[in-house]
Amino acid sequence: MTSLDDLPLRDDLRGREPYGAPQLDVPVALNTNENPYPPSERLVKALGEAVMDVAGSLNRYPDRDAAALRADLAAFLCADTPGAGLTGRNVWAANGSNEIIQQILQAFGGHGRTALGFEPSYSMHPTITRVTGTGWIDAHRAEDFGLEPERAVAAIEEHRPDVVFLTSPNNPTGTALPLDAIEAALDAAPGMVVVDEAYGEFRRAGTPSALSLLPGNPRLIVTRTMSKAFAMAGTRLGYLAADPAVVDALLLVRLPYHLSAVTQAVARTAVAHGEELLGTVDALRRERDALVAWLRGEGLTVADSDANFVLFGTFPDRRRVWEGLLERGVLIREVGPPEWLRVSVGTPAETAAFRTALKEIL
Amino acid sequence: MTSLDDLPLRDDLRGREPYGAPQLDVPVALNTNENPYPPSERLVKALGEAVMDVAGSLNRYPDRDAAALRADLAAFLCADTPGAGLTGRNVWAANGSNEIIQQILQAFGGHGRTALGFEPSYSMHPTITRVTGTGWIDAHRAEDFGLEPERAVAAIEEHRPDVVFLTSPNNPTGTALPLDAIEAALDAAPGMVVVDEAYGEFRRAGTPSALSLLPGNPRLIVTRTMSKAFAMAGTRLGYLAADPAVVDALLLVRLPYHLSAVTQAVARTAVAHGEELLGTVDALRRERDALVAWLRGEGLTVADSDANFVLFGTFPDRRRVWEGLLERGVLIREVGPPEWLRVSVGTPAETAAFRTALKEIL
Repeated sequence: MTSLDDLPLRDDLRGREPYGAPQLDVPVALNTNENPYPPSERLVKALGEAVMDVAGSLNRYPDRDAAALRADLAAFLCADTPGAGLTGRNVWAANGSNEIIQQILQAFGGHGRTALGFEPSYSMHPTITRVTGTGWIDAHRAEDFGLEPERAVAAIEEHRPDVVFLTSPNNPTGTALPLDAIEAALDAAPGMVVVDEAYGEFRRAGTPSALSLLPGNPRLIVTRTMSKAFAMAGTRLGYLAADPAVVDALLLVRLPYHLSAVTQAVARTAVAHGEELLGTVDALRRERDALVAWLRGEGLTVADSDANFVLFGTFPDRRRVWEGLLERGVLIREVGPPEWLRVSVGTPAETAAFRTALKEIL
Repeated sequence: MTSLDDLPLRDDLRGREPYGAPQLDVPVALNTNENPYPPSERLVKALGEAVMDVAGSLNRYPDRDAAALRADLAAFLCADTPGAGLTGRNVWAANGSNEIIQQILQAFGGHGRTALGFEPSYSMHPTITRVTGTGWIDAHRAEDFGLEPERAVAAIEEHRPDVVFLTSPNNPTGTALPLDAIEAALDAAPGMVVVDEAYGEFRRAGTPSALSLLPGNPRLIVTRTMSKAFAMAGTRLGYLAADPAVVDALLLVRLPYHLSAVTQAVARTAVAHGEELLGTVDALRRERDALVAWLRGEGLTVADSDANFVLFGTFPDRRRVWEGLLERGVLIREVGPPEWLRVSVGTPAETAAFRTALKEIL
């Protein structure tokens, strides 16, 4: 039998493992930061009808520029942050924000260039960086997972990266970023600054979005996704807001017709039902805050969270805790700094199951 | 206003134009080799129902490995070429065969490596090659657009590319490749050999598929798409068949959850309705052969075609012919060698409109 070692694989991929949270069938899945609330019957019907509307012409290629969807997403972002004045020309969409990140690195990174992030952070940033041939620089966060402007600037001035990844809130720590850190990074950075706001809709009251910094900052890119607050992980729709010149750059590297007619129709329907889908955000925020308080009450250390997950610890043997939860039907994620674990915020019943199981183990 | 020139774009992308056939709204679109026959009402309904079946859990991520779809596609390929003995482990799927090609180059190409193709051929091969940082080598086809084993071997031995692109039938010429040319390329090539069979289902009786060469050839990859014969261009589903070790390699570079739950459901429904969708292939083949004969009867030079399009010429000013057709509501493609034009095979009415318009111009 042929093995991977027998194939002429790129040298830097040898010995690597595929990305992947285990896909296990468990009663309580709190491992991938999904929104636990499924679409309503009304929305399910609307999604099916939207697909039937386009299915009659599926023999034809989709709109390569996804113009209507981008306009819808711009309108949604304007409601979130009116001052940004965004239109469809400012927005670009792809199959998940992973593809958005890949396109950004293909346009602004590549061999001989570097991207820098502040770890612990989203593990796909370095992974996609490397696959595009871009060098990865790991700048570290502070002990409390924060990122002060001075720390950001010092790392950027030292390494002069072509792409800087910031995250707000950060995965897996839940930490939001103050706007002055983003502004300082923009001032210091010689290249593009990406603020990954995959969990942006969950941020606490008073925490601003980097969208407000877009006017006058053509090197700033804010990425979003419909996989988290929007409860559409299965649809795979990521997007960004930026200066239209950034979109022009991505047009040079995007695969033509990358976004299917079905994806465009489903995503537009989801945006149109945004009130329903985002209607769960407040409940999830409350559930999160209660979970943070409960974990602290149990004597655990817990990172402040502006997201729909909570990083908690510290466990000299986190694997034992993770396995103990799994034995009790609760799947969480073994990710982030060595002694910490991450749990997604589920429904009240799911979170209760997690609490019960954790209490048994501790 | 910011322009692309103001951004820190990769140097090798400066001055490039985005890929793109013009997206024009015309009565007769014969420019992108789509299957002109739309899905039936029965299939439209089935597609809508399939999406409704998965829509209730769209808040969850899709199956990252698309196992059920890959098994379905393997079964379809087995019916096409029983001797290949393919299972889901041999098949990989992505958002269009463009993404398949990109993943192949990310795994087996990259900086310091090269890919070679025989032009004129599919223009996305060199485009995607360059975006992945891989060097592109243009080896030429013979005057009649053929590719003899000796020519293939000579180019491969001269350049020692890491990836070889073969195409059967070739776009935009329609030329199929005999198996001995593929076998010779495999023997000579130090790396991977990709046979792009995007139009494979349209091949004339007696022309074999490279699928039959897969057993015992772990460096061979055969790519297919549902965009052409399968009449599902709007769905964006490309796939490949190869040794399972090749799939293991692609798992190292693929974006996790790249294929949405909706795409998986729609593609599986299309495969299940393969009889309907592929039922138009024979009619399109006959229409193609009649079109080739008619064009030759008009005194034009026409390349033999095993695809659903025809390359014809030669025109000292092909732009004039292309524009004349467009003025008459018929959009074809200005692509390939300088004095040639490519027309997709449409319905009998569409092809008749093309013939009438062309006759007026000539």
